[in-house]
Amino acid sequence: MLVVMKAQATPEEIQAVCEQIEQLGLRPHPLPGAQRTAIGITGNQGEIDRGNIEDLSGVAEVIQVSKPYKLVSREVKEEDTIIRFPGTNATIGGRDFAMIAGPCSIETREQAFAVAEEVASAGAQFFRGGAYKPRTSPYAFQGLGEEALKIMAEIRDKFGLRIVTEAIDNEALELVDKYADVIQIGARNMQNYSLLKAAGRKRKPVLLKRGIAATLEEFLMAAEYIMSEGNYQVILCERGVRTFADHTRNTLDLSIVPAVQRLSHLPIVVDPSHGTGKRNKVIPLGRAAVAVGCDGLIVEVHHQPDKALSDGMQSLYPEQYVQLMNEAAQIAAVLGRTVPRGIQITEGIASR
Amino acid sequence: MLVVMKAQATPEEIQAVCEQIEQLGLRPHPLPGAQRTAIGITGNQGEIDRGNIEDLSGVAEVIQVSKPYKLVSREVKEEDTIIRFPGTNATIGGRDFAMIAGPCSIETREQAFAVAEEVASAGAQFFRGGAYKPRTSPYAFQGLGEEALKIMAEIRDKFGLRIVTEAIDNEALELVDKYADVIQIGARNMQNYSLLKAAGRKRKPVLLKRGIAATLEEFLMAAEYIMSEGNYQVILCERGVRTFADHTRNTLDLSIVPAVQRLSHLPIVVDPSHGTGKRNKVIPLGRAAVAVGCDGLIVEVHHQPDKALSDGMQSLYPEQYVQLMNEAAQIAAVLGRTVPRGIQITEGIASR
Amino acid sequence: MLVVMKAQATPEEIQAVCEQIEQLGLRPHPLPGAQRTAIGITGNQGEIDRGNIEDLSGVAEVIQVSKPYKLVSREVKEEDTIIRFPGTNATIGGRDFAMIAGPCSIETREQAFAVAEEVASAGAQFFRGGAYKPRTSPYAFQGLGEEALKIMAEIRDKFGLRIVTEAIDNEALELVDKYADVIQIGARNMQNYSLLKAAGRKRKPVLLKRGIAATLEEFLMAAEYIMSEGNYQVILCERGVRTFADHTRNTLDLSIVPAVQRLSHLPIVVDPSHGTGKRNKVIPLGRAAVAVGCDGLIVEVHHQPDKALSDGMQSLYPEQYVQLMNEAAQIAAVLGRTVPRGIQITEGIASR
Amino acid sequence: MLVVMKAQATPEEIQAVCEQIEQLGLRPHPLPGAQRTAIGITGNQGEIDRGNIEDLSGVAEVIQVSKPYKLVSREVKEEDTIIRFPGTNATIGGRDFAMIAGPCSIETREQAFAVAEEVASAGAQFFRGGAYKPRTSPYAFQGLGEEALKIMAEIRDKFGLRIVTEAIDNEALELVDKYADVIQIGARNMQNYSLLKAAGRKRKPVLLKRGIAATLEEFLMAAEYIMSEGNYQVILCERGVRTFADHTRNTLDLSIVPAVQRLSHLPIVVDPSHGTGKRNKVIPLGRAAVAVGCDGLIVEVHHQPDKALSDGMQSLYPEQYVQLMNEAAQIAAVLGRTVPRGIQITEGIASR
Repeated sequence: MLVVMKAQATPEEIQAVCEQIEQLGLRPHPLPGAQRTAIGITGNQGEIDRGNIEDLSGVAEVIQVSKPYKLVSREVKEEDTIIRFPGTNATIGGRDFAMIAGPCSIETREQAFAVAEEVASAGAQFFRGGAYKPRTSPYAFQGLGEEALKIMAEIRDKFGLRIVTEAIDNEALELVDKYADVIQIGARNMQNYSLLKAAGRKRKPVLLKRGIAATLEEFLMAAEYIMSEGNYQVILCERGVRTFADHTRNTLDLSIVPAVQRLSHLPIVVDPSHGTGKRNKVIPLGRAAVAVGCDGLIVEVHHQPDKALSDGMQSLYPEQYVQLMNEAAQIAAVLGRTVPRGIQITEGIASR
Repeated sequence: MLVVMKAQATPEEIQAVCEQIEQLGLRPHPLPGAQRTAIGITGNQGEIDRGNIEDLSGVAEVIQVSKPYKLVSREVKEEDTIIRFPGTNATIGGRDFAMIAGPCSIETREQAFAVAEEVASAGAQFFRGGAYKPRTSPYAFQGLGEEALKIMAEIRDKFGLRIVTEAIDNEALELVDKYADVIQIGARNMQNYSLLKAAGRKRKPVLLKRGIAATLEEFLMAAEYIMSEGNYQVILCERGVRTFADHTRNTLDLSIVPAVQRLSHLPIVVDPSHGTGKRNKVIPLGRAAVAVGCDGLIVEVHHQPDKALSDGMQSLYPEQYVQLMNEAAQIAAVLGRTVPRGIQITEGIASR
Repeated sequence: MLVVMKAQATPEEIQAVCEQIEQLGLRPHPLPGAQRTAIGITGNQGEIDRGNIEDLSGVAEVIQVSKPYKLVSREVKEEDTIIRFPGTNATIGGRDFAMIAGPCSIETREQAFAVAEEVASAGAQFFRGGAYKPRTSPYAFQGLGEEALKIMAEIRDKFGLRIVTEAIDNEALELVDKYADVIQIGARNMQNYSLLKAAGRKRKPVLLKRGIAATLEEFLMAAEYIMSEGNYQVILCERGVRTFADHTRNTLDLSIVPAVQRLSHLPIVVDPSHGTGKRNKVIPLGRAAVAVGCDGLIVEVHHQPDKALSDGMQSLYPEQYVQLMNEAAQIAAVLGRTVPRGIQITEGIASR
Repeated sequence: MLVVMKAQATPEEIQAVCEQIEQLGLRPHPLPGAQRTAIGITGNQGEIDRGNIEDLSGVAEVIQVSKPYKLVSREVKEEDTIIRFPGTNATIGGRDFAMIAGPCSIETREQAFAVAEEVASAGAQFFRGGAYKPRTSPYAFQGLGEEALKIMAEIRDKFGLRIVTEAIDNEALELVDKYADVIQIGARNMQNYSLLKAAGRKRKPVLLKRGIAATLEEFLMAAEYIMSEGNYQVILCERGVRTFADHTRNTLDLSIVPAVQRLSHLPIVVDPSHGTGKRNKVIPLGRAAVAVGCDGLIVEVHHQPDKALSDGMQSLYPEQYVQLMNEAAQIAAVLGRTVPRGIQITEGIASR
């Protein structure tokens, strides 16, 4: 931490600040400058409450220096974390680019299977679908719950897709942990620390979405909450932040991808569907996300968006998903990464 | 809902949009204008998914019209809601201005009693203190939990102050409901719908803090979640929002007070402590909050801020709280409201 | 400036950074800490380009310390600046609270005189009116130009009101300087440095509006531009900033008032009309601005808002202005300040 | 425009609103809905001031419908605008992707030539360099002015690069128009309407940077100002907006590219240098900008960034620019666009 004194601070004031620092069990380092004196502080393990110092006489401002995160940091773990899925060659964070696709909500077994078949055949290692929907209105469709989880478990068996779905509370977490392969924590719950800790006690990977107004530090600290409980398999996800801009539902902040990669070893994927909220912008921003260097995309696809019970306006048509896959594959290649090819769907399955 | 067609939209395109609207069981009203045609939609009960229409050929944009909230709305209940506390004459939302004061966290019995005595004697009907602290870092002080709740229950008995404290999850909610008088839902949990619904099933008043990036509509919808479960005693709380401005921790948005009062019958209080994050700004913004016409203030007070385990830098010294009370009382009078006088503390208590 | 090294930075890397700092003619002060080493820098007169250091091997981040402003700073001038107007007892920044009122635009001589009479009789020392309007659309009413300035000069003579009006470019600046008493620089031009410098070469006070997304530092640096040319009579004006919040046109950031007062000796006034954009919020926020401790209000008043050529929706009716004056006077008194009483308008004038 | 009445609005109130609309010379269309009545308005040519209606009794809100822009709109001109440069095959907005590169500021003839040679040989059709620098501090380097313009004119002759440089005021505009090929209007001046109109009276293409907090509508309206004066050669430029996010200097909003392309026929380029403010993020975001489908990149390159007089920390090293060119070329190819190859620099020139 650094204390910046006012230009006209007296030697007595500087002395008093140094003594206060020592009383906190820390070591002050006065740096007399041309305009003013700054006082460096060393010896602190964690964060210091600036309140102890900021209001002392002669103090202009107090600047926090050491960052609070530990386990998420590259300073603790240099090499990239790669999330692996036993029994498959699907990974997140490695050379292979991850494609996570599916409907916003699981509405019916038929709808879920129809979309799953489309995305599996177009190329996706992961299937996303909402069983529990955090909706702004209590009167809107809230999801099918466990029934949806069972449908997705069937989809895993039939199409070999890993299941990614959101847990909105501790109760849902138990069921998601039971049926799914990746536990998603939504943007609205990014600072629901109770839920983060519970997810940290599970052993399945956690996909953590960035809060709508989360700074990079808060985002990484939310991951730190999960890791501090022993679950080191965290996948970060940029899904757009809230700004004054009104031409998209959120403003997709792609610059956080290299920023995260500089500070942390955790993989990061991008959600261009929620990041834009408009179907006609999902493909361009999806391409951009691949180009910026993220580890995967999570996109909403629906075979009949016009009939979707939620987020229809941002869901891709299957043929649009195929286009995105093709363009993503070519752009990923420029960065030396590979995008999964579609699997062969047998007649038997196709006829279902 | 209103559909705005492009200037060069053809009659066929307009016709197609009208048919799609009818297929949704709604009634289209084409409005041929000078520049373009707009199509009004009536007959919808709830929200319509714009996705169904926005991508039709010839459509320029789709504008949502009817607001989704019901129970929170003045259109449903015209007169102001006043929260009453049996066995006391304390109210929130009526002519009396409510003062809620106390430390950020309950640290020890001594600290809690010392602050309680200060605020009770200076004038406060409510005591706030954190038992469960949602901290950005998992390594920071997380609160004393039930022990803190027991201390606050004692404070209610001794000083006659009603207790306001935060519930961070369902487990904490049960305990807060058992010991406290007002259940606080923090800003980070404003869209933790599972927690909102659980609070809605309690019978104690809920103080709902605005999320750091919540729009007025999202804020009111969070209250709607609580009310939709049957608990109509909701107190809204503005505590600052996140903006680009870096001279305060958050930007206190006082304009939401008259905005809420126009749309809703619920009371709204303001938190200038979190709203600014800096002690030297709490009094000026506290005065401003009274002047804008809110129903109460919730402020952090600590008898030894320099030793506070959390938020020390934004806690008022007891003498500053007295100053705020005095200025608030004079400003409230201008608006025809009364601020509570301090209670007499007997020697007996004072000597503790 | 402070350089924060990575935890695993080598002694060689730390050494290399120190050498680079010395090459820049500055003095490095390594501070070995528990987690990492930080390097304080002294000897710089102005700002240092972080680019020189941030990308050196082993550097985690670079933190700017010394603030760039000089003339605006309290460190240079301790006591408050009070703007005086020769031949009147009107001041801005002193004990007297300043009321600046008038229509958004000067539309006709009749309209201007009608509004001027209303605000003069209700109590105002300053008349505001747009001669040059910066409108978002090139097709919207752009103001009457010099004709409006002449009308306002007449208003000064008749009602003894000082004239405040905006200069949108150097050409308009010459005319505004000729006819008006205070040169207003609008929010859109807060970083139009060419215009700021030109205003700095004038000898009339300048009312500088905060840019819609200006930080406190940028705001003060814009004032520094004016002062650096020799004009020290600068009045700052908060008029709302752009945020995600959509219930008002802008979000009025009242916390900047105490923040400015802490750093600078310049007076600061508040514009609740543009700050909210809605008539029904001007009075509550106007009251709040007085309570927060600003030096004056600038408000839009129109005798027939429904017929206003611009900003009608945020203009007060004369009777609303009277109410605001009365409430402002009572609240200002709480802060030990006085609000001007209305002047007596003779029949003679009233009949014009 | 659409007027939304309150649910309990009376027939008389609805009638009164309709009459007010008719008094404004417009036509009201009442739409009785399930919950409330909405009133559509037709007959308006330009924008209507909502103030006339919003405060009438029974009105819940007023919604603006018709967009104010004309000349920038695809509704007026369907096909993409392509900017051509006589005597070259350089274009902006067509199939060829435009690369605009150079130093932040022109510091010396040697520096400018050194950078120009690098970018010309790596592949660029345009050279950018600041002659007039809008700096936050009046004490910072402000640019060489006309001397810099003369140096750039030489660079055009020697390397065949078209010159792009900023005009900060009308005076500078005359000189920029005389020496350069593209007149740049900076973000700080995006709403300096006086300057926009003056640029609109020139016949050279104008590169208009998005203001730091400009909405899509304001951005397009600024272009409308230029076009309304007769200059239809406008190039839009996204350069990052201001948000709460603190890991980059600005938040690059790539979603505005498809948003602009949907509404307007004007070309749009992206500036990843100012958009991120950090060298290590320029290449990833530059790649993303190409992938999102913009028409060109404008990047800062310096042969000795550590010695740059401005923005050194965001300037690419020449070899980094070569890498960006190569990656941009491959990604552009995926979108069916071509990126210019580097020109051959003769020994003669290279030896300079």
